[in-house]
Amino acid sequence: MNSENFKAVSWQDDQLCLLDQRLLPDEIKYIYYSDVNDVAKAITDMVVRGAPAIGITAAYGIVLSVKKHAAQENWYEVIQADLENLRAARPTAVNLMWAIDRINTVLANVESEPVKLALAEARAIHEEDIQANQTMGKFGAELLPKHAKVLTHCNAGALATGGYGTALGVIRAAQSAGILGQAYASETRPWLQGARLTAWELMQDKIPVKLVVDSAANSLMQVGEVDWVIVGSDRIAANGDVANKIGTCTHAITAKYHGLKVMVVAPSSTVDMKMPDGASIEIENRKASEVTGVFEHQIAPKDCEAVNPAFDITPAELIDVIVTEKGVVKQPNTAAMQALFGS
Amino acid sequence: MNSENFKAVSWQDDQLCLLDQRLLPDEIKYIYYSDVNDVAKAITDMVVRGAPAIGITAAYGIVLSVKKHAAQENWYEVIQADLENLRAARPTAVNLMWAIDRINTVLANVESEPVKLALAEARAIHEEDIQANQTMGKFGAELLPKHAKVLTHCNAGALATGGYGTALGVIRAAQSAGILGQAYASETRPWLQGARLTAWELMQDKIPVKLVVDSAANSLMQVGEVDWVIVGSDRIAANGDVANKIGTCTHAITAKYHGLKVMVVAPSSTVDMKMPDGASIEIENRKASEVTGVFEHQIAPKDCEAVNPAFDITPAELIDVIVTEKGVVKQPNTAAMQALFGS
Repeated sequence: MNSENFKAVSWQDDQLCLLDQRLLPDEIKYIYYSDVNDVAKAITDMVVRGAPAIGITAAYGIVLSVKKHAAQENWYEVIQADLENLRAARPTAVNLMWAIDRINTVLANVESEPVKLALAEARAIHEEDIQANQTMGKFGAELLPKHAKVLTHCNAGALATGGYGTALGVIRAAQSAGILGQAYASETRPWLQGARLTAWELMQDKIPVKLVVDSAANSLMQVGEVDWVIVGSDRIAANGDVANKIGTCTHAITAKYHGLKVMVVAPSSTVDMKMPDGASIEIENRKASEVTGVFEHQIAPKDCEAVNPAFDITPAELIDVIVTEKGVVKQPNTAAMQALFGS
Repeated sequence: MNSENFKAVSWQDDQLCLLDQRLLPDEIKYIYYSDVNDVAKAITDMVVRGAPAIGITAAYGIVLSVKKHAAQENWYEVIQADLENLRAARPTAVNLMWAIDRINTVLANVESEPVKLALAEARAIHEEDIQANQTMGKFGAELLPKHAKVLTHCNAGALATGGYGTALGVIRAAQSAGILGQAYASETRPWLQGARLTAWELMQDKIPVKLVVDSAANSLMQVGEVDWVIVGSDRIAANGDVANKIGTCTHAITAKYHGLKVMVVAPSSTVDMKMPDGASIEIENRKASEVTGVFEHQIAPKDCEAVNPAFDITPAELIDVIVTEKGVVKQPNTAAMQALFGS
């Protein structure tokens, strides 16, 4: 069970290579980047998406910045503007800030060969992410029943991470262990990551998947077709509140109404112990045209107003378990989170 | 406050005239029908949709059938096949069966001029529907606070009825009374009736409306932007369970989680006291391609499986009030329903 027939993010020939996820599943097109500011724009424009993948992309972006400026005496000061630009590319994913801070700390103390060290650190971040996903996959799959029926939202897969995936890592591990009954992907308007990415990614690996519109997930739950809702996260607060793709909280509320289980799967770099709760997390509001149209196709009247939050906050009380590579937090709250992640 | 700049269903020059709702809001195109079987196909193909509008359409369709066969001695027996065909056009809307039964009962006892009588009865059904909507609008608006913030789903408007609308009738009445703060329309995948029809219809009448994807409705509720969820219905069971467009139950569950109110607005012809509860109501499952694509645009991998229920059942326990032209049922259950609608 792998996903090696595609790579969302990779470093090739001294360039960053991204799979353009806006074109999936129609077209498999890779774009090569040699300028850090193009990388920041690629993150904003969602060529790459998914919190861990964004962090890894930014790490390789910093390598490009260091390469560009390393000949200057004050290169470390100079690259800080590029790092700020990367940080601003998308506000909600804490992994972005985490990856940038991690490389920046290494670079602050470097004496020679900064490019080599930056690349080594970016590669370490990437490799550790894949390892973490495999560990989380194992932890998560251990919680599932036989013939598990699972619903996932958005794409928290190999496409959203360094490889293997978080929520889809659990589904991959369940499939490997022979306990997966059926996976359902909710389409995830407005960007349709469930339809375009998750359905495609699972079908690549021959994992049984059926697609539903977001608002039909509840009907599957009503008729016993879902045991667990399994999702990724863009940021987890110190009390266990979870920021994730718009629609996640709706799935969690309906799951709890029907007495079902909710699992959040994310690397520990997603946990932000500085955020006391979900209300402190900045939610990105995107442009109305993403709602009034579906890609180039206008669906609503042209001058129709729209509200378009990209993420929502799922309160910890709705979550049964948060799975990280460091371990799992059952019935998350501030005390349980502190026990695993410190303060 | 009217919606007289368009007519979803009308009788003109001895023909049935339907506004082709599949083309809205891009194009305003009317189609004329003189054959009853084309009318049945128009209902199946969703040229017209909305339970009351479907009932009125079928009523005019029967007029066409009677016109065709009235010269035959046994015309009444002959038209029964056309009536069966109309009944089968869409299974969930009880108004369809109700309208057909009502005209059929009149025709069973007719002695002369069956076309004239069928048309008079169809026109009565149509006119009574508009009157009922205005009554329901008044009843519903009386329950709203000042500066009411309301969320509606799908289209239960003038486009879905004989005119004025059920859920949108309440919103129109609130606007007329000066108590409407803001209306939100959820887009209603897969057919996008919220984006294409409700946003368009409300904008025609200068009613303030903002569009959201279905799964973002919960985020509006979370930040206090919704007081009431107001929806129509395709069938209401004897215990107050409500069948309505897929996604309605999700909105009701999230509304109750946030302590908000849920109103269902439907004419008494929608109430089916022969159905003990929602579990007895047949739910139409439609083809996968409505989910794997958005109109002609394929979004998921071509051979992706999908589940596509067109309606869901909202349990009575989640509903604060059912508004009909006969009166309102608060906290609906079997006893409260029987008190208003008999057994």
